[in-house]
Amino acid sequence: MPDERGESEAFRTLNGYREAEKMKITPSMEDYLEMIMRLSADGEAVRVCNLARKLHVTPSSATKMITQLCEKGCVYAERYGDVTLTEYGRNMGTFLMRRHETIHAFFCMLNGSRCELSQTEKVEHFIEPHTLASMERAIELYKEKG
Amino acid sequence: MPDERGESEAFRTLNGYREAEKMKITPSMEDYLEMIMRLSADGEAVRVCNLARKLHVTPSSATKMITQLCEKGCVYAERYGDVTLTEYGRNMGTFLMRRHETIHAFFCMLNGSRCELSQTEKVEHFIEPHTLASMERAIELYKEKG
Repeated sequence: MPDERGESEAFRTLNGYREAEKMKITPSMEDYLEMIMRLSADGEAVRVCNLARKLHVTPSSATKMITQLCEKGCVYAERYGDVTLTEYGRNMGTFLMRRHETIHAFFCMLNGSRCELSQTEKVEHFIEPHTLASMERAIELYKEKG
Repeated sequence: MPDERGESEAFRTLNGYREAEKMKITPSMEDYLEMIMRLSADGEAVRVCNLARKLHVTPSSATKMITQLCEKGCVYAERYGDVTLTEYGRNMGTFLMRRHETIHAFFCMLNGSRCELSQTEKVEHFIEPHTLASMERAIELYKEKG
């Protein structure tokens, strides 16, 4: 049903960006939100020390960033406790994870490889909405061709 | 003649990156080198004030960056005088301009548009050599198909 797909595509490519812009979210915040989302999805408890380890930053850097994400309304956090995404943060995180997957799939297709993590992580914060939509279309066309 | 093209492609995609890495050249330095190259190619005298205006930075920022590019062996500069590329700087600048053109052409092709300057400028510093080579191949294939 093309209409439904059109709507979901628009959500993934445009609204996520608009939200990110409104929130003045930085590439670093995006990395944190994406990782919190990933850990939550894996059912792991999200704590500052986990995040710091996964993102290769110091616990004090992670603490500072969590404070900023609390101020932006993306997460709830208790001292020494879990970090939990708000509904707003979860929507942002979902968008960021999908953006990551699309860009990764696109570069794998372009480069004929199975892993383009480094390339994806370098550019994902800078891919514009219309380019992301084109990448999605190119992946669909490639799949259709088999 | 595929061999010749292979060699020139390797120069454009690999050596330029290796040089940039050896020199620890930053994205900001890349922007300056690219602009100096562009102004030189247009036959304009390259002065700090021109560069600052073109790159929308203050003259004092441009002066600091020119000092750094002198230290890296990319340019010669005289106080209040012209900025001239060394042979080394010219090779780097040539590589950066070609990288820019390739990425711009690729995004125009992907997005079906005629201008992707903003998208190109955001990601050009982060496109890896093998991705650049794939972009070049994709452009060639597209041209061959007419």
